[in-house]
Amino acid sequence: MAAAPQPLYWLGKETLRVSAALFAENRRRLCNGLKSKGGVEARSVVVLQGGEQQQRHCTDTDLLFRQESFFHWAFGVTEADCYGAIEVDSGKSLLFVPKLPHSYATWMGEIFTKEHFGKKYAVDEVHYSTDIAEVLGNLKPAVLLTLRGQNTDSGSVSREASFEGISQFQVNNTLLHPVIVECRLLKSDMELEVLRYTNKVSSEAHKMIMKNVKPGQKEYEMESLFQHYCYTKGGMRHTSYTCICGTGHNASVLHYGHAGAPNDKTIMDGDMCLFDMGGEYYCYSSDITCSFPANGKFTTDQRAIYEAVLKSSRTVMAAIKPGVKWTEMHRLADRVHLEELVKMDLLKGNVDDMMKVHMGSVFMPHGLGHLLGIDVHDVGGYPEGVERINEPGLRSLRMGRLVQERMVLTVEPGIYFINHLLDQALADPAQSCFIDNQVLARFRGFGGVRIEDDIAVTATGIELLTCVPRTVDEIEAFMSESDKTFSPVVSSVKF
Amino acid sequence: MAAAPQPLYWLGKETLRVSAALFAENRRRLCNGLKSKGGVEARSVVVLQGGEQQQRHCTDTDLLFRQESFFHWAFGVTEADCYGAIEVDSGKSLLFVPKLPHSYATWMGEIFTKEHFGKKYAVDEVHYSTDIAEVLGNLKPAVLLTLRGQNTDSGSVSREASFEGISQFQVNNTLLHPVIVECRLLKSDMELEVLRYTNKVSSEAHKMIMKNVKPGQKEYEMESLFQHYCYTKGGMRHTSYTCICGTGHNASVLHYGHAGAPNDKTIMDGDMCLFDMGGEYYCYSSDITCSFPANGKFTTDQRAIYEAVLKSSRTVMAAIKPGVKWTEMHRLADRVHLEELVKMDLLKGNVDDMMKVHMGSVFMPHGLGHLLGIDVHDVGGYPEGVERINEPGLRSLRMGRLVQERMVLTVEPGIYFINHLLDQALADPAQSCFIDNQVLARFRGFGGVRIEDDIAVTATGIELLTCVPRTVDEIEAFMSESDKTFSPVVSSVKF
Repeated sequence: MAAAPQPLYWLGKETLRVSAALFAENRRRLCNGLKSKGGVEARSVVVLQGGEQQQRHCTDTDLLFRQESFFHWAFGVTEADCYGAIEVDSGKSLLFVPKLPHSYATWMGEIFTKEHFGKKYAVDEVHYSTDIAEVLGNLKPAVLLTLRGQNTDSGSVSREASFEGISQFQVNNTLLHPVIVECRLLKSDMELEVLRYTNKVSSEAHKMIMKNVKPGQKEYEMESLFQHYCYTKGGMRHTSYTCICGTGHNASVLHYGHAGAPNDKTIMDGDMCLFDMGGEYYCYSSDITCSFPANGKFTTDQRAIYEAVLKSSRTVMAAIKPGVKWTEMHRLADRVHLEELVKMDLLKGNVDDMMKVHMGSVFMPHGLGHLLGIDVHDVGGYPEGVERINEPGLRSLRMGRLVQERMVLTVEPGIYFINHLLDQALADPAQSCFIDNQVLARFRGFGGVRIEDDIAVTATGIELLTCVPRTVDEIEAFMSESDKTFSPVVSSVKF
Repeated sequence: MAAAPQPLYWLGKETLRVSAALFAENRRRLCNGLKSKGGVEARSVVVLQGGEQQQRHCTDTDLLFRQESFFHWAFGVTEADCYGAIEVDSGKSLLFVPKLPHSYATWMGEIFTKEHFGKKYAVDEVHYSTDIAEVLGNLKPAVLLTLRGQNTDSGSVSREASFEGISQFQVNNTLLHPVIVECRLLKSDMELEVLRYTNKVSSEAHKMIMKNVKPGQKEYEMESLFQHYCYTKGGMRHTSYTCICGTGHNASVLHYGHAGAPNDKTIMDGDMCLFDMGGEYYCYSSDITCSFPANGKFTTDQRAIYEAVLKSSRTVMAAIKPGVKWTEMHRLADRVHLEELVKMDLLKGNVDDMMKVHMGSVFMPHGLGHLLGIDVHDVGGYPEGVERINEPGLRSLRMGRLVQERMVLTVEPGIYFINHLLDQALADPAQSCFIDNQVLARFRGFGGVRIEDDIAVTATGIELLTCVPRTVDEIEAFMSESDKTFSPVVSSVKF
């Protein structure tokens, strides 16, 4: 008997084929996690509610739907307004899809059968969501496990599943969240494959930007080109986060690019560019920052700052392996930055003493890096029992635990010249004593440098997922190559 | 004395300069509207709440902010989390902006002063939103007018302004909505200028697609290219709605392109393309559909259907002027379609008899067109007293009133071959008697043709805002021109 075709997510051409088996494995991991946790009774059933289609305010303009992350992790379903359930004992998976009116076929497209969704997502049963209370009732569950827990980056609480008739069930909304978070923390082989792909496409898109940037363009033109490359070549309809295209002084604004600062400056000759952008494929993220001079040639100061950050990036990467403390990696990056700033005469004195007064956070106020997965700031950074260190810099670190194999993390050290932080430091005798203000003055308006790579932690070290020119020589050579036929986006497009 | 620089929204290069005077005029129109309406007392103060920054579900991933439409119409403010107030008697405008913490400067950018916002948006006063109750109290208002009313397209109710301390005021939430809707219905000269611009850019983007489409590409590549053109050339970070890139059979799905049908088909030789896409600039929309063969040459059947739709489009446009009933324009389009389908032998019999049994809606189940402005389906289609006609086709018409000067509307007739509607018609003896099923069979899977232009109603007729090749000859000539150097997107980009 010929094998049935393997259910796949695939957007054609060179885009990645992702097997529905990825989500079946995730569900198995979840059931195993729940079974090995005390307090989960026999005949427990997990119930997750997918994201709902939303509109712009009170209008009928649909926002482009993006699936809720926990639901995506467990089911890989692209459609809105679904539910999923998993029998913990047996692992049986049930998907609940909306029963659509006839008019849907006119406005939105073919109304697919339940069998269609069963095959598409390789789940054991598909029902209409209107029948969810009855179908779950027939499972005679001891308890429904719903998802309620706080996201440690946003502070927001997940919205637990709710449906008409749920009051007839015993519901526990606290057991599931910590277990599913621990599952999402460690990436399976199939998940790593998707994250390699998102990194590959986004790396190529960054390279395309480096080839095409030039003074006189607007920052948002680079955002537009990045998005176009990721979508047209990589099938990435969403980016993982709003593109940050800071140039010149804007490179010192960590989350530049939002509606209040919308990448609208003209790129000037002499500017450093700090472009932090990542494409998302089938809800899996990437998060990459490239920093380089807009005109392709580093000045002496630009080179010095850039190489200081690169040194901390590579020092940290060499040190990462299972068992190390992520907080120590953050401190290591700080230390390298301070040592390099001393060599540049921007700082003076003993680096150990500087560390005691948190000089590192003056130049890198953010955390060294964060977990990456279905969310760009992926879950699991602070499980119960792991406390945030309330110190400048470290308090912004999104993960406080030991590094483990199969974590995917960003390594994103940076040095920035942020006026109000510099002024604060200069006003504080404990910090100002280390600063040569004459040298520092030269860097006011410089902006900043961030070098951000995505890594997967292996048994002995790391796998680097990002692949872009990184040394000063690599960048200058890459940007100066007269051949700009790199990475065709649409070969027939003649602009 | 030199004039102060006029506050402008401008994204540089060839993008449009929009004066803040546009919004001052809108506020004046609103005050005049309120004063001329019975029931609005002296010392009334309008209070509007702008859109809030939102995140993806429980994560900290910000959704790209787009301003709430009523607030944008009155204030043109691009930032999230603001309020605005207008003293109806004096016309005095007050903007309330969030008081940002110091850390904002590190993460999000410069913290601007109240004076900055006062100049940027040319309002009379700027305060922090934390002070709104006190500031409004000092105005000693008789009543605050907040915005509560139903959107007649979505059925959703607008979210009225709310803030701590509002309970100390007299509030009326019913007077404002109908008046501001009537103001939005008719576009000022400055608004028309913006809508001309959104149409110009989007028309050029459509032409770029026509030059570059070819069989073998994925539909989403066209979406990506459209978005890239609109953003990089036009400063359009948002589209007005999710791009509809239906080819072949998908062209019969009216709102194709959403997450459940995400423009993921491969474009085939012989397919008709139906690309319905519009860019948005400074929250003003456009909404354009081009239909053409993927390979650049119409077949006989494609030409016949296309020319039938073009005839209804141009017949309707010639008839539109102030005072005509929009519902009659819809019926006129239906009539032309039916006459043309008779000429093609797809239908047989008397067109008047066909009209009585709503044959037009079998082929065009949607409305002829809708109001366009800050929302792609702009407000005002059904004010109190104007009832929807509950007939097939007409019940989907988003505007039921007489055409007026300064309305901006889409004219978007279409003929589609939607299997379940055709089957319904064939099963209904009152309709099937008009259908030649042998001829019809040839069109199963054809998809559909929609021709959608945006128009502004003038004193005597219309101004056509959209400018794309429309006749069969124009399209074939345009798509066959060997010169594909049309409309450079980024002149230095070599793909």
